[in-house]
Amino acid sequence: MTTKIAVLGSGSWGTVLGELLVKNGHEAVIWGRSEREIQQIQSEHQNTHYLPGIKLNPNLKATTDLESALQGAAAVLFVIPTKAIRHVAQQVAQVLHKQQQSPILISATKGLEQTTNERVSEVIASVIPRANYAGLVVLSGPSHAEEVVREDITTLTVASTDAASAQWVQSIFMNHYFRLYTNADVVGVEIGAALKNVIAIGAGALVGLDYGDNAKAALMTRGLAEMTRMGVALGAQPLTFSGLSALGDLIVTCTSPHSRNWRAGRSLGQGQSLEHILTTMGMAVEGVYTAKTVHDLSIARNIDMPISEAIYQVLYAHQNIQSVIAQMMQRHAKSENELMRTRN
Amino acid sequence: MTTKIAVLGSGSWGTVLGELLVKNGHEAVIWGRSEREIQQIQSEHQNTHYLPGIKLNPNLKATTDLESALQGAAAVLFVIPTKAIRHVAQQVAQVLHKQQQSPILISATKGLEQTTNERVSEVIASVIPRANYAGLVVLSGPSHAEEVVREDITTLTVASTDAASAQWVQSIFMNHYFRLYTNADVVGVEIGAALKNVIAIGAGALVGLDYGDNAKAALMTRGLAEMTRMGVALGAQPLTFSGLSALGDLIVTCTSPHSRNWRAGRSLGQGQSLEHILTTMGMAVEGVYTAKTVHDLSIARNIDMPISEAIYQVLYAHQNIQSVIAQMMQRHAKSENELMRTRN
Repeated sequence: MTTKIAVLGSGSWGTVLGELLVKNGHEAVIWGRSEREIQQIQSEHQNTHYLPGIKLNPNLKATTDLESALQGAAAVLFVIPTKAIRHVAQQVAQVLHKQQQSPILISATKGLEQTTNERVSEVIASVIPRANYAGLVVLSGPSHAEEVVREDITTLTVASTDAASAQWVQSIFMNHYFRLYTNADVVGVEIGAALKNVIAIGAGALVGLDYGDNAKAALMTRGLAEMTRMGVALGAQPLTFSGLSALGDLIVTCTSPHSRNWRAGRSLGQGQSLEHILTTMGMAVEGVYTAKTVHDLSIARNIDMPISEAIYQVLYAHQNIQSVIAQMMQRHAKSENELMRTRN
Repeated sequence: MTTKIAVLGSGSWGTVLGELLVKNGHEAVIWGRSEREIQQIQSEHQNTHYLPGIKLNPNLKATTDLESALQGAAAVLFVIPTKAIRHVAQQVAQVLHKQQQSPILISATKGLEQTTNERVSEVIASVIPRANYAGLVVLSGPSHAEEVVREDITTLTVASTDAASAQWVQSIFMNHYFRLYTNADVVGVEIGAALKNVIAIGAGALVGLDYGDNAKAALMTRGLAEMTRMGVALGAQPLTFSGLSALGDLIVTCTSPHSRNWRAGRSLGQGQSLEHILTTMGMAVEGVYTAKTVHDLSIARNIDMPISEAIYQVLYAHQNIQSVIAQMMQRHAKSENELMRTRN
């Protein structure tokens, strides 16, 4: 018997994950709001806006009707922007209640909700009643969608406080080019995936300023150290930050020009203003919003995060990049692995 | 009063560290065997073989006489190849005994001794009597010498079981472009710096085989996980592997074509034989030897290190790269943070 999975979101990652599930022999239905995109996936087996030139499996279904998408689904996969999560989860809650379903919920959305600073799985769990889901799992890691669709090797983390749910999700996704590792630390996985976007802006800025490989490695390593510090303050395990959802994704995001955050940072380093960058990129740069969230959290929790704070100061307080770098380099000497360190 | 530091080794890293110490207001004397190189540094203030086009500080001294180099030195910095460490340390022991000195010993050499599998600081401590040194410190991290000499930002770890020695070394090296972090975990720092060279061969091979960013991030992250596993078995702290000496250096080595290990791996991926690669590169590729050491250690300690083992099988057992990758991807499903996992 095939397993049905509802994939919420018809962007590149949602489409590619749906395609992968179909290849693995499951039934996948993509739900989205765009009549045009959904119609194109359903009838023409392509998604030209997000995946130009890619022919999708004819068995990949798509609909704009949430009730039919969820009907009979063993799992519901959220692959929508962070800012839409609460609203969509509310709609899902209504349908699951009405259809008396309790599927496994999977979040493949990375980020923190701007108004509440909540993790995506926290938002979902706060909106959908516990009776209407069998388990809550986070799927995260270094995964350019274009590489997954051409069956290049990709590894991800599946995190859940419920080991059986994580293992079930691992089993439906895993194949010869897509490998998943379970992790019980949901907080660490989600915090790492969100906070790395701020560091990626810094990595881009260093390239824009013509710094070398030593500086890039310094930024990424010390950036990961402060991400870990914040994670631990929020209840995460430090080793999760050495895993695929934090370090792995940090590597991809900080070394690939495909990343929006990295490109925004490079433009900043080249002297462009934030306003100009956001206007010309014409799409959301998640790390810019996350920098504000991290700034707020680091004050609220009294956690020393010098790199994220420097990036915040450049983005929001018009500080000069070269001077914030110089300030960082002149800080008092430190030891390497301080899991708890307060702001000065 | 200026502090005198003897720098053993006239290669690029030794020369650049000597130059940096002089810039910091200390007295640095480079000791080396090559009359020509030493003469060039001492009289012409350049080292054209290793640092072409770089003008060195006239206050940087150089000598082929070990006794005069060590005379009055507060610290002795080892920056010589791993295979020469034991022999040079024996010479240093004789001079320190004769001159009744007990300086701080600093190792900036990365690697494991081939015949014994010992870490460099273990070799030094086994050869130089405890009465003849005040402390033993390891200096390690992501540091292309050419970037340091042009005052690009660089960060390193200074590790010692003696915190005061580590802080003293931190204080003599640190300046506005060179930042050091102390760490008490000498084992972790040295194991990370040595083992990353094996993973770098794999990273190069993936590029040679035309894999993408997801695969590179997978290799580095899962590579770090198995390096950590071996480190923990040898007594290291897991978090040290998220630091500059392991992760930081891994980033630089796996993403920069300057790395010999990475270039050897890329050639392997492109289908060249190991013999051909070693012959045409005309210099030592440390990771090739370390792969053998890691293979031996992983058997002796019964530690699962699938990536390093796959690289060993390609290098030493003529296994096909594509088939070892396929085998790795078909391993049984795992959880992410297993600090102890035995070979199958």
